[in-house]
Parts: sequence; C-alpha cells; structure tokens
Amino acid sequence: MIIALDAMGGDFAPTSAIEGGIMAARKFDDSTIVLIGESSVIESHLSSLEDRPKNIQIIHASEVIEMGEHPALALRQKPQSSIAIGFNMLAAGDINAFCSAGNTGAMLVGALLSVKAIKGVQRPAIAGYVPKPDGTAGIMLDAGANAELKAEHLVQFAELGYIYAQSVMEIPNPTVGLMNLGEEEGKGSAILQSVYQSLKTHPFINFIGNLEGRDVFTSKADVIITDGLVGNVILKLAESVYELLMTGNTPLDSFFTKLNYELHGGSPIVGINGNVVIGHGRSTPLAIKNMVAQCRRMIRADVNQKISKAIESMANPPQN
Amino acid sequence: MIIALDAMGGDFAPTSAIEGGIMAARKFDDSTIVLIGESSVIESHLSSLEDRPKNIQIIHASEVIEMGEHPALALRQKPQSSIAIGFNMLAAGDINAFCSAGNTGAMLVGALLSVKAIKGVQRPAIAGYVPKPDGTAGIMLDAGANAELKAEHLVQFAELGYIYAQSVMEIPNPTVGLMNLGEEEGKGSAILQSVYQSLKTHPFINFIGNLEGRDVFTSKADVIITDGLVGNVILKLAESVYELLMTGNTPLDSFFTKLNYELHGGSPIVGINGNVVIGHGRSTPLAIKNMVAQCRRMIRADVNQKISKAIESMANPPQN
Repeated sequence: MIIALDAMGGDFAPTSAIEGGIMAARKFDDSTIVLIGESSVIESHLSSLEDRPKNIQIIHASEVIEMGEHPALALRQKPQSSIAIGFNMLAAGDINAFCSAGNTGAMLVGALLSVKAIKGVQRPAIAGYVPKPDGTAGIMLDAGANAELKAEHLVQFAELGYIYAQSVMEIPNPTVGLMNLGEEEGKGSAILQSVYQSLKTHPFINFIGNLEGRDVFTSKADVIITDGLVGNVILKLAESVYELLMTGNTPLDSFFTKLNYELHGGSPIVGINGNVVIGHGRSTPLAIKNMVAQCRRMIRADVNQKISKAIESMANPPQN
Repeated sequence: MIIALDAMGGDFAPTSAIEGGIMAARKFDDSTIVLIGESSVIESHLSSLEDRPKNIQIIHASEVIEMGEHPALALRQKPQSSIAIGFNMLAAGDINAFCSAGNTGAMLVGALLSVKAIKGVQRPAIAGYVPKPDGTAGIMLDAGANAELKAEHLVQFAELGYIYAQSVMEIPNPTVGLMNLGEEEGKGSAILQSVYQSLKTHPFINFIGNLEGRDVFTSKADVIITDGLVGNVILKLAESVYELLMTGNTPLDSFFTKLNYELHGGSPIVGINGNVVIGHGRSTPLAIKNMVAQCRRMIRADVNQKISKAIESMANPPQN
C-alpha cells in the first residue's frame, strides 16, 4: 500500500513530519511512504541517514498552506501546495491514503473537493479517538468538521461511526450512544430528541440511548454521536487534561497515558471516497508514524467501500 | 441570614443532607439553617447529638420529590414536598436562600414558578464552577438549564456571568470567553458567530473572544459562555476525570483536587429573584456544607439586585 504524508504539515514541519515518515517507513516495510513537500529539504534530510529506507518516495511541492490560512482560498491559490498535490494523487488513485498534520480546514475542504463525499453521505465527519479505562477504545463523531447540523446528519453519523468501528476497529456490533445533557429519553433539544427516535428504530444501529459527559471515558458506548462543537470541546478538553497531568508530573495509569494524542496519531475523515487522516498540529514524529498506522488500518478495512454499500442498501432496501 | 436546606434532596438524603446542615450550622454560627423535610427523621437525628446546634430550625414537609420525577408534574402534585415548601418560603421572603441536592429539574422549575426570572432576563442559567490551575476559579454558563438557545440568550448569559463573577467571586473586571470549535473570529455556527459580534461591541463585557475545549482549565477566561449541552458535558466530563484519577489512586496535585465537586458544593441558578443553589445528586455532608457556604456568598453579594439593576439600565440607557 502507498501512503502519502504531507511533509510540510504541522507546527514542527518539515522536521517532525519527515522524521515521522522515516519511522513509519522503517516500521511498515510492506508500505511505500510518499513524502510530499519541498524536495530539497526532504532529500537533504534523507541523505543524512546512514540507513536510508528504500520505501520512501519524494514528490516535490513548491508551495505550503500555512496553519492559519483560509482553507478554500488557500487551496485555490496554491495548487502546488503539498495538500493540493496530495489530494490530486488520492483522487487519481496514485496513493491509497493521504495524511497531514497541517491545516485541518484545508484537509477537509481538499477531501470534499477531490475525492468527494460518498454518494448518499450528506456530511462527512471527523472521527475522534476515545480511549476507555478498560483498555478498549471507541470513536466520537463529529469531532469538529461540522458546526451546524440537522437531525438527519447526526443519524447518518451513527451509521458512519457504526461501520467505521466495526470494520476499522474490529468491534463486532458496536454500541452507539447520543451525547446529551441527561440520560432519559426526551432530554435535550428538539434535534437531539428527533435523533433519539430515529436511532431507537434504526434497522442496524445498536443504539443504547443518551450519554452524558461522564460517560465519555467509560465502556458504555463504542461510538459517541454528537455535533462538531461538542465533539471538538470534548477532544480538546481531554487533551488538556493529559497535558495538565504531565505538567504536574503526575504518575499516570495506563488509561490517562492513552489520552496522549501521539499514540493514535490522527483523526480520519469518515464518509468520503478516500482514506484521509488529519493529524494534530503539534504532531511529533511518533504521532506522525501512528497517523500512518491509522491510514494502514483504514486501507486494510476498506471502510469507504463498506460505508458506500451500507448507504446504498439503505437507500434501496432489498425487495421481498 | 437564614438559609433553607432541602433535607430530603440527594442520593444520600436525608442523612447526608442533615449532617451537612449540622456542619454548616456549626461553621456559620451567624446564620440560621432551616432544614425542610420529614420532621420526625430530622428531629431524631438532631436529638442524638451531644451538642445540638441552636441555629438549626426544622420545617416539616410530608412529601418528597424523587430524583427521577417529572419536575413540573411533581411540583404540582406534591405541594407539601420539601422543594415546594422551600420555594414558597423563598418567595415569601422568610428565608434568604434555598438549596437542595435533589431533583435539578424541580429546582429549576420551582425557581421559575416561585421567585421567577429577574425582569428582562429571558433565560436564567445554571452557573458551573470551574477551577483553574493557577488556584483561581471561574464559572461557566449555562451548565445545563437550557437545551435550546438563541444568540440573544447567550449574550445575556455573558451579562449574568460577568455580574456574578464580579459580585460573588469578587473578580474586578472578569474576562468573558465564548466556547467554540476554534479560536478565530468567524468560527462556529451562525448563532455563535452572532454572539461573537454582539459581545465584541458590548457596552460593559470584557470579551476576550472564542475559547476552545483546551481553554476550560486555563486562566484565559473567568466566565465561559456556552449552551446547556456543552456546559453540562464539560462539567460532567471533568467530574468523571476526577473520579477516574481517584479510582486509579493517582496522587493529585492541588488543581485536580479541586475538580472534586464536594469542595464547591453546588451550582447557583443565575438570573432569578432569589438565591438558589442546586447541589450534586451524590452530595456528601461536606458538599452540603459547601452548598450552604455558596448561598452565603450570594446573599452577601446581593447578586440578584445587581443583575436586576444592570439589565434595567441596559434596557433604559441613561440619556445624555
């Protein structure tokens, strides 16, 4: 499998991205790692290695989309940027996955403009990784791609999340919960109440009802459904807890160690015709390597094909 | 000052509530603590004390609103419940504050039906306590009273929160931030964008812009503005982090110790004509005692009068 990595993406790019790419290439010798970026910089970094991995390729990109740039504008104005080139390669089928720790908005817009949403998927979502104290992990959709959602979008997130958890995370019949401000049916906004009713009678979702904030880090639900604001707040709050614990030199048990974003590397965009993972802006080489590992799991699971089939069969249910 | 406490409210009531009331009576000997509940139970508890505090009064309530009951229905059907009687006393001016660790919804509805919202306040909010690593504390509105909000409601939460932080928490010119999924102006839903613009040009709010989930436990903003869903999720998530740390026997630094809800006792309803504090369902005697302390601060600060004046002067700005 061929996995392309934006060598220019992230706060510590290109060094951190290139070093993470090298770590990934060494670890996954059945894969080709394509580093997209300023070729002279990448080449000089690789040349300095005693043992240069053979499974690294370089694709030159003369432009860089910076972290603060307006996503759509930047993609239009910088067709030679590493992100624009990555998505062109993904859409052309030259690579099996593309990942970057760069501008999140540009990654989202780039995905929607190039490989596009899967037919029938109204709003692709970012899936955030949620570690659990029992050692398992779940995901949360949406972790920040969508600020404004209708009930039907949230219901579809449940479908996307269920299939993702089943195929990529290999959870046989994932439990799905709806984040709300109380457990009881009938709690929350009109939108959340409507989502609750749709999921309760859903043909395949294993819906367990409403969740509260205290349930995020429990084994109650494998898939947490929420809007982009709540999901984003939860992920960033959890990350800050990890950092506060580290700052305080608190000895961490195995659960709190897993709040370290470096260990899971990145968040996939779910619901598009391609494997795309967005990394944390502050990605270290370890985080970059794990972002590549995340791409590998998505490629292996063929998750987008599975989502496509599920959405299609829901739109055209089999006749008796 | 006379502070009434629902002796029947909370998962460990009446024992925990009565013991907390006794702790409060011993600690605050300038106050009268009114215990509202089944008088025989309260009396038998007090009679067993060697040193019965003289500043405890008992008001009999023959009914109890249970935790799971429908708030409005329960208040109508149980006029002799401790919560109904507490609000009657508050509305009549017999007590200076009323607090309970019982049914949150019944406390909210009871407040709105009895002492009512301050004139001009569209939606009273629950203010959640937010400890900061630098040893200070802030508040977050709304922590769960309102599931559905318009921009104007959130703008008013900023006003309520600013005045509360200034008068009760004695922060001279509190900074106010808007919880969002990104820092930049223009982020988030249409509602959040509109709130941002209103706060930016607000006559007295010290607005510092958008906040992200990672900013909750920093000194960035004294007052966090958000809707009831996000606020509730943040508070309950933070609480679960404290519990996970305790379960793991992690040695806690002073910041994480403060995530213990027992230390601040309860969350005030802000924007009503009375001092009302809602405690955690699982309140221990220590939490109950601290909920009474919270009532004392609100009474001393005369916060509702200050809110009323501020709202009135905004509706009728002084003429030049």
